[in-house]
Order: sequence, then structure tokens, then C-alpha cells
Amino acid sequence: MKEKILLIGGGGHCKSVIDVIEQENKYEIAGIIDKKELVGQFVLGYEIIGCDDDLEELFEIYNCAIITIGQIKTNEIRVKLFHILKEIGYRLPVIKSPLSYVSKHSKIGEGTVIMHHALINADAYVGQNCIINTKALIEHDAVVEDFCHISTSAVINGGVVVRKNSFVGSNVTTKEYIKIGGFIKAGDLQK
Amino acid sequence: MKEKILLIGGGGHCKSVIDVIEQENKYEIAGIIDKKELVGQFVLGYEIIGCDDDLEELFEIYNCAIITIGQIKTNEIRVKLFHILKEIGYRLPVIKSPLSYVSKHSKIGEGTVIMHHALINADAYVGQNCIINTKALIEHDAVVEDFCHISTSAVINGGVVVRKNSFVGSNVTTKEYIKIGGFIKAGDLQK
Amino acid sequence: MKEKILLIGGGGHCKSVIDVIEQENKYEIAGIIDKKELVGQFVLGYEIIGCDDDLEELFEIYNCAIITIGQIKTNEIRVKLFHILKEIGYRLPVIKSPLSYVSKHSKIGEGTVIMHHALINADAYVGQNCIINTKALIEHDAVVEDFCHISTSAVINGGVVVRKNSFVGSNVTTKEYIKIGGFIKAGDLQK
Repeated sequence: MKEKILLIGGGGHCKSVIDVIEQENKYEIAGIIDKKELVGQFVLGYEIIGCDDDLEELFEIYNCAIITIGQIKTNEIRVKLFHILKEIGYRLPVIKSPLSYVSKHSKIGEGTVIMHHALINADAYVGQNCIINTKALIEHDAVVEDFCHISTSAVINGGVVVRKNSFVGSNVTTKEYIKIGGFIKAGDLQK
Repeated sequence: MKEKILLIGGGGHCKSVIDVIEQENKYEIAGIIDKKELVGQFVLGYEIIGCDDDLEELFEIYNCAIITIGQIKTNEIRVKLFHILKEIGYRLPVIKSPLSYVSKHSKIGEGTVIMHHALINADAYVGQNCIINTKALIEHDAVVEDFCHISTSAVINGGVVVRKNSFVGSNVTTKEYIKIGGFIKAGDLQK
Repeated sequence: MKEKILLIGGGGHCKSVIDVIEQENKYEIAGIIDKKELVGQFVLGYEIIGCDDDLEELFEIYNCAIITIGQIKTNEIRVKLFHILKEIGYRLPVIKSPLSYVSKHSKIGEGTVIMHHALINADAYVGQNCIINTKALIEHDAVVEDFCHISTSAVINGGVVVRKNSFVGSNVTTKEYIKIGGFIKAGDLQK
């Protein structure tokens, strides 16, 4: 029997994560947590069953959760929710698309999602509660610290360090072995 | 027995489509339609068996066709051919590389080809007679209207709308939830 | 029994190649060749067993080698080593990730490595001792001449010719059917 999982956040990014969880076929989606006024609505067929205030009560039934809110302007909500979930006692697994590739020589922190066609190469490290979005590349020896969003098709080259709480925009390119961080706009070249 | 299919156009893009059809292993290539003076020549081992004027007669033998002419400067010929083929009665299937990923939560219109390593994510919609070229990404909630070419490695991010008849160049990046259209040059950032 | 292979160069790129060789599961890594002072050290669990001066002696035991030194500023060392290895008599196979796609209508020269998620399309040609790095795309009818490095996520579009000894940086975009060469910086658009 598959373990049940709660999805925290029912927006656009949630749909992508649902697609990954369905393909991974390891967890059963128990329901989605969003704003109170949205309870009862559905996202790709999954019901919004509660809001943040219900998380403690729902922990009596479910032990496993993943944050499915996106992160563009700020990661504040994602960080706050991570700490709330951990404090209650939820387990935040790594969600890994079977269409991604994660080298056995890499390490991934809890609560991180690796989306379709993403790739984490040898000796790379990705921290907690990160989004490694569709088609993003984390090359050998790169480090993505906690609470980062590496957007679609972004290229984190060999040995690059992405500092905690950073947003790396879609299709960004980085030179090798540099340190980057903060808010990096879509399409930028970091050198 | 595999259904036979006619390829309309024998240039460079046709080669990529042949590769996709061979890998998909669902259709048998009956032959290629191109200019009269090229009849009898071969593309990757498949014969050019006729020109546009022969399409009506060939419909007595074959019922299925796909347009394999590329689209860079204009899509006029692709649009015109689409209407001619439909009028004669040809069925224009979706051609989907087994190396691509098309979410079951997405929809694809007839006559569209999804090339190797392309990805169509959840709740995305792609219209009729489009080319979603190699490694292109159509993210969640995005809409690609009819008769578009999304070139190699282009990134159509979440919720973006690409208007009818557009060309989105190779490795283009788009911000989320914007409307784009027309002729977008390779490497551009759309924001 | 798998054939044993020597890896020439134990840096960051070597790690990526190790990951590819492990996934390909066709060769057994016999050891790594690097500087004399590094002999006895390990890269991802594989020992550095000798330096360049030992290559002739090691040929009495091993017949197969691949160059795993990276190529950014110059390819001089990779070219020199290629000729040394060939002169001794080593066989330099094509190393091809099972996560890459290489069209059966393409040709790849000896000593070339095709990394994870790379794609070589129909009627493309890649010469000897090239690196087609992670997620790079070589489209239909493109030619990559000998001793080139096509970096991560670079896009070599249809019919492009990349001249001998070139470096094409990460996430570079090229227009179709042009000739490029030399040192092309990461993120560049070639038109």
C-alpha cells in the first residue's frame, strides 16, 4: 500500500508536482491544503481538504507532506511552512520524477522535489525544501543550498554554489565554480 | 499491422520526424511528398513518391498524413497543406516521440508532432498542426495555439499563451503567465 | 565479462564520465591516470593508478582508454593525449549514456563521450574525441568536427557545422545552417 501524502498549496506548481507524484507511483495523494475559501474545490481531480489551521489535526491521520507552493518573488511562505510541518512532526520526503536522473553519487535533502527531465549529476548536493524544476540541470560538484528554487531549464554548471534561499530563473546559465545567490532573473548569464 | 502514413515535405525537419516515427513504431512510412522534380529520390531510405498534385489520388491508397515541412520564416505552406489534406479527407494524427513526455493532464491537437525529449506538462494545451521541437518545454497551464512552431529547447513557462501562427525560436525563455506571439527570435527572453 | 577501461584525467569532468560509464554498464573502470603526486588517491571510489608516463606499460594489461580531462580554455592536452594513446595502440571507444539519445541515422567518431540527456539527431555527424556534454543537443544534419567540446545544454541546430578544435559554451544557441568555431562563450547566440 502506498503511503498517503498531503500537498501544501494548490496553484500551478502543484499541478506539476501532482504529475510527478503520479508518475513516481510511490505516494497516494490524500488531498491538498490551501486557503479556507477554496476547501472543497479540486486540482487535477484532487480535493482541497483543509487550510493551514488544519495541519495539526490532519497529522493524526497523515504523516507525510510536501510543499507544492511555487517560489518566484520570495520563498518566505515555503520556509515558514517547512518549519511548521517539521514542528508538528510531518515527514517531508524527497519527491523524484522517474523521468529525472539523480546520480547515486549525489545527495538530496528532505522536502525537495526533482521534477520531470531534471538532472542531478555526480557529487552534487541539493539541500532541503528545494524545487529543482522541469529540465533543470545541476552538474557535477555543484551545491544548491536549502530553500532554493532552480527554475525550468536552468543550468547550474560544475562546482557552482547556489546560496540558501535563492531563486535561479528559467534557462539561466552559470559559469563553472562560481558562487551565486539571491534573485537571478530568467535567461541571465552568471559569470 | 501498422497504419501507413504519408510525410508531406522531404527537407531537414522531415529527417527528425522520420526518426520520431521510427522510434514511436506506430506508423509505417508509405513515402514522402515533395516537389515534382525530386520524385524518385530518397530521404533516410524513404522514397519521394509524389508531389502535392498527387495527394488526391494517393488518398485512394493512404488515409493518414503528417506535415513534415519546417516552419521558420512563415507557416503559410504548413497551414495551406493542412487545409488541403483535411479537405481531401486525410487523418492527421498526433506524432509523439517515446522519448518525449506528454502529461495525461494535457491535450494535443491533430497533426501536431512532439519531438524527442520535448515535454508537455500538466493542464497544458497544444493546438493543431504544431511542431513542438526537440527538447522544447511546454509547462503547466500553458497554451500553444494552432499552427505554431516551438523550436528546439525553447521554454514556454507556466500559464504562457502562444498565439496562433507563431514561431518561437530556439532556446527562447518566457516569463510565466504572459501572452506572446508572432516571430520570436532564437535566444530571446520574453517578459 | 566487461572490458576494462582506463580513464585519463581525474577532475570534475571525470566524475560525470564515471557516472555515464556506470550507467552504461558496458566497461569496467580499471583506474584513473592523473598527475604523479595524486597516485593512490580516489575519485568516486576509483583509484588513480598511474600518470602519463605509465601509459605504455599499462597497455600490456589494458587495451581500452577514454580521455576524461575537461576542455574549456584549450583542448591542447586532450588532442595530445589522443595521439599518444592511439600511437601506443589503445582503443578509444564511444562512451554513450543510456540516458542520451543517439539516432541510428547519425555517426559518432572514436573517443567521443555522449553524456546524460544529450541528443544527437538524424543525419548528424560528431567527430573524434569530442565531449557532447549533459543535455546538449546536436540537431539533424549538424556536423561537429574532431576535438570539440559542446558544453552542457548547448543547442547546435539543424545543419550547423562546428569546426575542429572548438569550444561551444554552456547553453549556447545557434541559428540553423551556419558555420561556427573557436571559443564560443556560455549563453551566446550565434547567428
